[in-house]
Amino acid sequence: MVDELLLKRAGILIEALPYIQQFYGKTIVIKYGGAAMVDPSLKEAVMTDIVLLRYVGIHPVVVHGGGAEISELMKRLGKEATFVNGMRVTDAETMEIAEMVLVGKIGKEIVQLINQHGGKAVGLCGKDAAFMIARKMRSEPDIGLVGEVERIDPAMTDLLATHGFIPVISSVAGDEKGNTYNINADIVAGQVASALGAVKLIALTDVQGVLKDIGDPESLIPSLSASEVEDQLSRGVYEKGMIPKLQSCLIAVRGGVERAHIIDGRIPHAILMEVFTDAGIGTMITQ
Amino acid sequence: MVDELLLKRAGILIEALPYIQQFYGKTIVIKYGGAAMVDPSLKEAVMTDIVLLRYVGIHPVVVHGGGAEISELMKRLGKEATFVNGMRVTDAETMEIAEMVLVGKIGKEIVQLINQHGGKAVGLCGKDAAFMIARKMRSEPDIGLVGEVERIDPAMTDLLATHGFIPVISSVAGDEKGNTYNINADIVAGQVASALGAVKLIALTDVQGVLKDIGDPESLIPSLSASEVEDQLSRGVYEKGMIPKLQSCLIAVRGGVERAHIIDGRIPHAILMEVFTDAGIGTMITQ
Amino acid sequence: MVDELLLKRAGILIEALPYIQQFYGKTIVIKYGGAAMVDPSLKEAVMTDIVLLRYVGIHPVVVHGGGAEISELMKRLGKEATFVNGMRVTDAETMEIAEMVLVGKIGKEIVQLINQHGGKAVGLCGKDAAFMIARKMRSEPDIGLVGEVERIDPAMTDLLATHGFIPVISSVAGDEKGNTYNINADIVAGQVASALGAVKLIALTDVQGVLKDIGDPESLIPSLSASEVEDQLSRGVYEKGMIPKLQSCLIAVRGGVERAHIIDGRIPHAILMEVFTDAGIGTMITQ
Amino acid sequence: MVDELLLKRAGILIEALPYIQQFYGKTIVIKYGGAAMVDPSLKEAVMTDIVLLRYVGIHPVVVHGGGAEISELMKRLGKEATFVNGMRVTDAETMEIAEMVLVGKIGKEIVQLINQHGGKAVGLCGKDAAFMIARKMRSEPDIGLVGEVERIDPAMTDLLATHGFIPVISSVAGDEKGNTYNINADIVAGQVASALGAVKLIALTDVQGVLKDIGDPESLIPSLSASEVEDQLSRGVYEKGMIPKLQSCLIAVRGGVERAHIIDGRIPHAILMEVFTDAGIGTMITQ
Amino acid sequence: MVDELLLKRAGILIEALPYIQQFYGKTIVIKYGGAAMVDPSLKEAVMTDIVLLRYVGIHPVVVHGGGAEISELMKRLGKEATFVNGMRVTDAETMEIAEMVLVGKIGKEIVQLINQHGGKAVGLCGKDAAFMIARKMRSEPDIGLVGEVERIDPAMTDLLATHGFIPVISSVAGDEKGNTYNINADIVAGQVASALGAVKLIALTDVQGVLKDIGDPESLIPSLSASEVEDQLSRGVYEKGMIPKLQSCLIAVRGGVERAHIIDGRIPHAILMEVFTDAGIGTMITQ
Amino acid sequence: MVDELLLKRAGILIEALPYIQQFYGKTIVIKYGGAAMVDPSLKEAVMTDIVLLRYVGIHPVVVHGGGAEISELMKRLGKEATFVNGMRVTDAETMEIAEMVLVGKIGKEIVQLINQHGGKAVGLCGKDAAFMIARKMRSEPDIGLVGEVERIDPAMTDLLATHGFIPVISSVAGDEKGNTYNINADIVAGQVASALGAVKLIALTDVQGVLKDIGDPESLIPSLSASEVEDQLSRGVYEKGMIPKLQSCLIAVRGGVERAHIIDGRIPHAILMEVFTDAGIGTMITQ
Repeated sequence: MVDELLLKRAGILIEALPYIQQFYGKTIVIKYGGAAMVDPSLKEAVMTDIVLLRYVGIHPVVVHGGGAEISELMKRLGKEATFVNGMRVTDAETMEIAEMVLVGKIGKEIVQLINQHGGKAVGLCGKDAAFMIARKMRSEPDIGLVGEVERIDPAMTDLLATHGFIPVISSVAGDEKGNTYNINADIVAGQVASALGAVKLIALTDVQGVLKDIGDPESLIPSLSASEVEDQLSRGVYEKGMIPKLQSCLIAVRGGVERAHIIDGRIPHAILMEVFTDAGIGTMITQ
Repeated sequence: MVDELLLKRAGILIEALPYIQQFYGKTIVIKYGGAAMVDPSLKEAVMTDIVLLRYVGIHPVVVHGGGAEISELMKRLGKEATFVNGMRVTDAETMEIAEMVLVGKIGKEIVQLINQHGGKAVGLCGKDAAFMIARKMRSEPDIGLVGEVERIDPAMTDLLATHGFIPVISSVAGDEKGNTYNINADIVAGQVASALGAVKLIALTDVQGVLKDIGDPESLIPSLSASEVEDQLSRGVYEKGMIPKLQSCLIAVRGGVERAHIIDGRIPHAILMEVFTDAGIGTMITQ
Repeated sequence: MVDELLLKRAGILIEALPYIQQFYGKTIVIKYGGAAMVDPSLKEAVMTDIVLLRYVGIHPVVVHGGGAEISELMKRLGKEATFVNGMRVTDAETMEIAEMVLVGKIGKEIVQLINQHGGKAVGLCGKDAAFMIARKMRSEPDIGLVGEVERIDPAMTDLLATHGFIPVISSVAGDEKGNTYNINADIVAGQVASALGAVKLIALTDVQGVLKDIGDPESLIPSLSASEVEDQLSRGVYEKGMIPKLQSCLIAVRGGVERAHIIDGRIPHAILMEVFTDAGIGTMITQ
Repeated sequence: MVDELLLKRAGILIEALPYIQQFYGKTIVIKYGGAAMVDPSLKEAVMTDIVLLRYVGIHPVVVHGGGAEISELMKRLGKEATFVNGMRVTDAETMEIAEMVLVGKIGKEIVQLINQHGGKAVGLCGKDAAFMIARKMRSEPDIGLVGEVERIDPAMTDLLATHGFIPVISSVAGDEKGNTYNINADIVAGQVASALGAVKLIALTDVQGVLKDIGDPESLIPSLSASEVEDQLSRGVYEKGMIPKLQSCLIAVRGGVERAHIIDGRIPHAILMEVFTDAGIGTMITQ
Repeated sequence: MVDELLLKRAGILIEALPYIQQFYGKTIVIKYGGAAMVDPSLKEAVMTDIVLLRYVGIHPVVVHGGGAEISELMKRLGKEATFVNGMRVTDAETMEIAEMVLVGKIGKEIVQLINQHGGKAVGLCGKDAAFMIARKMRSEPDIGLVGEVERIDPAMTDLLATHGFIPVISSVAGDEKGNTYNINADIVAGQVASALGAVKLIALTDVQGVLKDIGDPESLIPSLSASEVEDQLSRGVYEKGMIPKLQSCLIAVRGGVERAHIIDGRIPHAILMEVFTDAGIGTMITQ
Repeated sequence: MVDELLLKRAGILIEALPYIQQFYGKTIVIKYGGAAMVDPSLKEAVMTDIVLLRYVGIHPVVVHGGGAEISELMKRLGKEATFVNGMRVTDAETMEIAEMVLVGKIGKEIVQLINQHGGKAVGLCGKDAAFMIARKMRSEPDIGLVGEVERIDPAMTDLLATHGFIPVISSVAGDEKGNTYNINADIVAGQVASALGAVKLIALTDVQGVLKDIGDPESLIPSLSASEVEDQLSRGVYEKGMIPKLQSCLIAVRGGVERAHIIDGRIPHAILMEVFTDAGIGTMITQ
């Protein structure tokens, strides 16, 4: 007579309890990107995941980039996107386009979606309250207004988080002279996770995680130590797309974050799967 | 390649989100009793349910009685339990036994179980900080130290709840002259729900809810208005065991509680099923 | 032997004191626009004015639009801007452009400038924490995604203001279904001033104020009552550009703001002149 | 013409002032037991003393045991109490009886008495909020569920005390596996005094204090250093009943409590005499 | 064997408990003057009484005058004191003398004495934070800078009191134009008691209280209603010195103070006798 | 068409901004004395300067002496003022006169003036809350009740300052035995600045600052290090009046105050000139 379905559902909520307890009152930074930022139903799933985290007492912080949409608007404006070592060559006009797209389009869209699902998100970039200060990244050849994080002051985001707001951070920041820089969003996510004392960094990607054999989806490496990653990065083991993800995780873990995860954002509710199950998904990087 | 099981689990968590949002920061009073207080695995399930409520931002408050265990200790001490109109005739010695059993055995056992599951429960009776003051219930014939609630001061329980502690209340209280009274736990639960401004009272029973035809388990009445209940109580429709449950719900609902529920405590995680699903289970009483 | 210059300077600081005392702890909303948003030295002057207000204990809130820059990006993207009754016909693509320009370009530029002058500005639009909810403005013919303010929840801006941050609000907001609307920034400023309980609304324009004879700069009307403005608006006295400014002031004043001012943003430090002198500048609208 | 009686009374209040100032805002732990817990007028006197302490700005905390009443209920239930080295052999049934008596009878009776005298007492045992965690005491032969204190978390009792509530602690606690232990109340009092940073521990006994010659009531030793006590304990100087009292005092003093006192609970208001006079009564143990 | 003396002392402390409970957290205003301000041992007694009040959770506030010392300094400076209807004719020089004596001599002496006894007193007059604003009292003939209380803002004294400081108020205040006025200290005490929401005003005098027959010390009237006092004042029953005391009490009682007392300051610890005994001393005026 | 005057005024406000930012939330101690305490229009200017400081977020604290007025009252009372090494020989009667003049006349006059200009000043001496404890200054020959600062407890002044009140401190303090001492106000100012963690000490004098050649007003030394001052003091370079000023500055700077200034109080608004301009005026002493 017992409704088996209801029973099962209750059981699953109960299985989540130890994870809720473990992360209660802690900060989890989510690097949002890839398919999960394109596919409407995946987007929906990410937003509910984030709102759920906040309602079970966790402080989620979202960091996002948006290279494809930047390139698209550049194209529409008759500008060709050029890259050096995977980094966008960024002149003043490109920077303006990037900022408009990241802050004024993608960021606010995420904010609105979270709020439609019952959250209270606030869209921010490094310029707001000057909470993240950038400096020009030195590179040869010069690639323009590409920046790196100089320092982060967590006062404003902490204020918002402790009052139940969810910061959504676009990977744009200024320096003290009034310049604006585009920063790799993976790197920003790692830095933010470290500066905010996050317990976890979760990077949503379009792969299953780190694979031993890139052609074999069965070869997922479930966990790596920071030293292993550093070693393998220095030996050039990883393909190009994976490198900034791994660097982001290293920054986080070396900066005090307990665990960083590269997970498959193509799976709906991948965030919940990572946070609320023992096995987790994807590849975990630890100290 | 997606793990279907994990996916399903995530989906179920997500389905709970609207309910979490609805009850966030609100108080839910649970009248604990019946099989759920006897069967070890049901007990375990109730405790995890309560801890889960607290971790998703709800303030659970537990009220319990324990008639059977009182009678048992009475028997071991060579005292026979006698009842008038379903109420225990309570002389001074019986009262002492009842208080020892309720406060010193059942209450603290619940506290310990909740705390083993990660909660921070505190066992209380009306005497603590004199937060619930009783008076003698008038009855013909006189049945001794059976009381009714005179007033409740929520200051201490509010202090505990806002600091994340879970009050576990035994249905014993004193008056200002130093007398002690045994009070029907159902009635205490209704009064506490009202005095604490709870949004919900959930009474765990050993039946499915209110049945139209007591012999037909398919005849469950899913919802009743307070007026319907009052009308039917006055017409003597209900069997004896159901009457205090319904009176408890009436006290709560007439005292401002939005919804009171009589649910089947024999089903594991019945509390979660009630709180986190649309259909709910059992019978709901509303204004 | 006394340094006459220093003496004079001190005297001027002292003359500002009564105004500082009058507005201490109060909110002043500044509608930023026109030449003051284009000319670099005027921009600089506005930013220092705003930072000064905050350091003398006033809570400044900035609201801005940016029609010209929206039109310019539309043009670069091969879209022609069309207007009906002075309002931009706004299809989905136009809305996206408007949002990018207002939120991602103009808003963050203001934020960065304020912060370079020692303030702590945070760029917001209605979507952030859903603090300002819009609805479609009905018009004949339909002009698309042009909105009006449905309601404002001042909780987040109050939180920021009481912690010393300066909200910079772009005139874009969403509704609960996920639509985005462009709203006249003057109207937003009036609504925000009223919802935040501001003591003053200051609209920076490119005229001296309300002139009796539009051709005669000597004919400035220093003050008007709300009823006078309503009467003259209904009689069609004002030229087109002035109408939304006056409506903004009316919304503010009718919504409880003591004084609304239409001032000449072409004058450097016009805000300080308005706030810290007895005569003030421009035209003042009062209840 | 001056009322000599009133004058005397005022003088006595004034003499208490230096002691009130000395202990203002400090915690004093009272080990309650012996005749003072049996004789009705002594009980009354203790309760008023405790309430008075709280009203003059001191934070009193009460710890109690209750061996005689445990033995009595055991006897009524046909169980014989057996002791090894003065410690009660405690099987599961004995433990249940002990908990019922201590928590559900004695503790709540103290609570009610304090509250009748105008205090706001709350009855607690180690299980509440798991504030005191026990472990099995190793002994040869095994004596069952007799525990010792593993650790104390003062968060909940501090919360209660700073809000004017008076914790009344029964000497029962659990471990993390769900076992329950009976702990010597003297030892609990010493541990609690140390963990709560008390300035004083006062143990109510049925003797005058530590006597040089146990047969000579004139031979009271007014003060002993912790080292003297340790030395004399190791030399077996003391009679059996005094040993746990002295150990309790040692635990307190070695744990940072300034002074521990063994006083004669048969004297009404012995607590006030100790706290508010220069001479004090009984024997004082200091660092 | 029990020390009878200690026992008696404890008993007296206990008798004070109900009064401590009654006045806990409440404000008691003491009008200090007469012999109690001259005799060294009486002064000492008053100071300890005040400090004791504060340590048992009461907020004492002291108001004092000092006519005799003003006259004395006037005389030393070759100025003759003249009075009209019992009020000092106060020219500018007299006012300066009065202020120096009251604020700079008597007030600070009281402050120092209280602090020597363990209190934390702060000496104030109406000018401090402009908390009490005076206006010229109209009289025929004109008597100069004699004032009456126009209004009292309790913000600063409340701030001090809730942080444990004891305000000592000299009966001098200014108006908004910079004039200084001498105000009858009895009247100030009544006004302060009312403005601060005191529960009691105690006026120390050099008589036993209100006597039915001024020549018969046995004829003390223990209590009077405000109406009785008003009636008798209008009928000219009282001798001159008593009139301002009774007016002070009327102001207090009519302004919401529960009880006002005229007591004999020549008795040491008269304040404690009034506050901590049932009978009290002197004459009590009630609503 | 722009009003040049208004424009200039705004510009001057803006020039003050960096200084406001620099000193925001910091304490500045002002040693008030000399012509600025005598000339009515200079007094007025000082008061507005102090109120302005407070309204731009700075915490001003005023310390004053008043030797001339003490001597004057002494003379009127037929007492001759005598000095040894520039210090007033202070018998009990002289001390009483000094206290009345400083606390009851000068201090409260300053308080009233500040409050008339919109501040909330509170007049204090060391006796209030015993915040500044003095001891007898040893000297040969004995000069009586001349004191030096033993210690300062900033709790009360901090409480007042953080609530927007302005402490005005007279240079009188007591010891714990009830003695009263007159202390050099310059020295008090230095000690107070150090104890309160001030960022600046500003001493108003009747000279331009430290002059190289006392006869040549053009020879002002704009800045000196603490070591230079110590060296020159030991070499007896300075004239008598300057010595306590320099000692005061040394106490402050050696006690952690960043900058101490000796400025010309004969110039109206000299405080503002010092605080809000780059050049400053007078002589600055730094670490």
